[in-house]
Amino acid sequence: MNDNSQTPVTVIGLGLMGQALAGAFLKAGHPTTVWNRTSSKADRLVAEGARLAPTVGEAIKAGSLTIICVTDYPALHELLDTTEVELAGTMLINLTSGDSAQARETARWAERRGAHYLDGAIMAIPAVIGTDEALILHSGPQSDFEAHRSTLDALGTVTHLGADHGLASLYDVAGLAMMWSVLNAWLQGTALLRTAGVDAATFAPFARQIAAGVADWLPGYAEQIDSGSFPAVVSALETDARAMAHLIEESEAVGVNAELPKLIKEMADRAIAAGHGGEQYPVLIEEFSKPSGG
Amino acid sequence: MNDNSQTPVTVIGLGLMGQALAGAFLKAGHPTTVWNRTSSKADRLVAEGARLAPTVGEAIKAGSLTIICVTDYPALHELLDTTEVELAGTMLINLTSGDSAQARETARWAERRGAHYLDGAIMAIPAVIGTDEALILHSGPQSDFEAHRSTLDALGTVTHLGADHGLASLYDVAGLAMMWSVLNAWLQGTALLRTAGVDAATFAPFARQIAAGVADWLPGYAEQIDSGSFPAVVSALETDARAMAHLIEESEAVGVNAELPKLIKEMADRAIAAGHGGEQYPVLIEEFSKPSGG
Repeated sequence: MNDNSQTPVTVIGLGLMGQALAGAFLKAGHPTTVWNRTSSKADRLVAEGARLAPTVGEAIKAGSLTIICVTDYPALHELLDTTEVELAGTMLINLTSGDSAQARETARWAERRGAHYLDGAIMAIPAVIGTDEALILHSGPQSDFEAHRSTLDALGTVTHLGADHGLASLYDVAGLAMMWSVLNAWLQGTALLRTAGVDAATFAPFARQIAAGVADWLPGYAEQIDSGSFPAVVSALETDARAMAHLIEESEAVGVNAELPKLIKEMADRAIAAGHGGEQYPVLIEEFSKPSGG
Repeated sequence: MNDNSQTPVTVIGLGLMGQALAGAFLKAGHPTTVWNRTSSKADRLVAEGARLAPTVGEAIKAGSLTIICVTDYPALHELLDTTEVELAGTMLINLTSGDSAQARETARWAERRGAHYLDGAIMAIPAVIGTDEALILHSGPQSDFEAHRSTLDALGTVTHLGADHGLASLYDVAGLAMMWSVLNAWLQGTALLRTAGVDAATFAPFARQIAAGVADWLPGYAEQIDSGSFPAVVSALETDARAMAHLIEESEAVGVNAELPKLIKEMADRAIAAGHGGEQYPVLIEEFSKPSGG
């Protein structure tokens, strides 16, 4: 199968994201079968060359692999968990949003049905699907990923995270936490600087430089976590905590929100109270790993 | 003054940071005068060629510029706010940690004493002072900064932020907020992934890539803030909020801390409650700009 652009594919679920996925396959030349509960959502894709299957079962039969992108996992099970749909021997790639437990349960269900199953997460908006910008995470058996990788490449930058089907969901929310945290820290700084008449565009390059610079520390800091040893090479947590107090005081003094600064200090203070004041920042992993209020 | 390495300089305050600053001047060839309340802290610097002045006043007289790096602003005023110290015509560069209000007040005080005054902030640890890695922020009259820039270059990457003396302190805490937020989001993600047996070193490159990628969005997002218009080009806040709920649910399901995820969603929920659910993330600037509980 050298000309992988001839691999027939199926896309189930034609919301904005499903339409983008099917559109990317069509653009790459794949014979593409689609299905959606409301069939009119397929109109544009059919005009572009997609085939609309009359049933989910026939849609799945048509493709060498089936991408599922529906509202949630219950919706997936409602569609596929019926004896009318033959799954034995099929390759299901589920890009529906959900959590790691749902992904693992659905993997066990698919196994019982004799299907190959990969769970995935899309870290991109529909507009960039089909470009390198679209990061699409997959987890499950590596052999299944490798067997279909060249087909999946049509969708964006595809990666395989590991055999545990829960990984795509975990990486997804972890990535989102990073995204919102960078944005929130930037908004905190922008709010602070605007009190001095500095516009957001002036502050943004500085914030960008700091974020990118700190991002570069992460692999080194990760070594401390994996070794479980947190010597204060750069600075000690109790020194950081004094600077955190400055951040809170400054935020309150100029009248901007101080909840993010306070949460930053609370987490550090707990680690200090637990005896880690002389250690380095990554020792906070112990606080982040505890249930809230636990 | 083409050979600026001959410019005499003074450093007041010889904690770890003050010693590093004086050491960098010495290394660059500047005749360097130092002073510290406990004079023994000057021993190493004197051995390296520094001159220890007997009084603060004589120390300041010896330099074309004086760097002040003491515990806090009250300590600065205790040292310098005396008629025994002649400040008229001198150039004071205060790198002591403090807030923007203290910086502005101290600038007015210096002006009344006839001194040139720049307020600064050091975004670096002592070990990197004297290298490009040491980012040193300055605020105050640009002419004062430009007149001494070539001398200050010995300390690291020096920048001038603007005439408002409060800016260095504001940028400093804003940069720290970014630093801790990137680290905390990484810790949240690391905690999530460790529940699936993924080690920190495996997750770190992913977190780094997301942080650096999001950092690149900031200049574009800043345009929305400066224009006060937040069209949902990438995604709408109410869509983001659903993904935030996933982050909270996943954190709670696997038993890690959910306080950071919850704060992320609370800020977004408030903006949605204020009618901004159909707008884009930077509209949250309105929430970040409000006093907490306000």
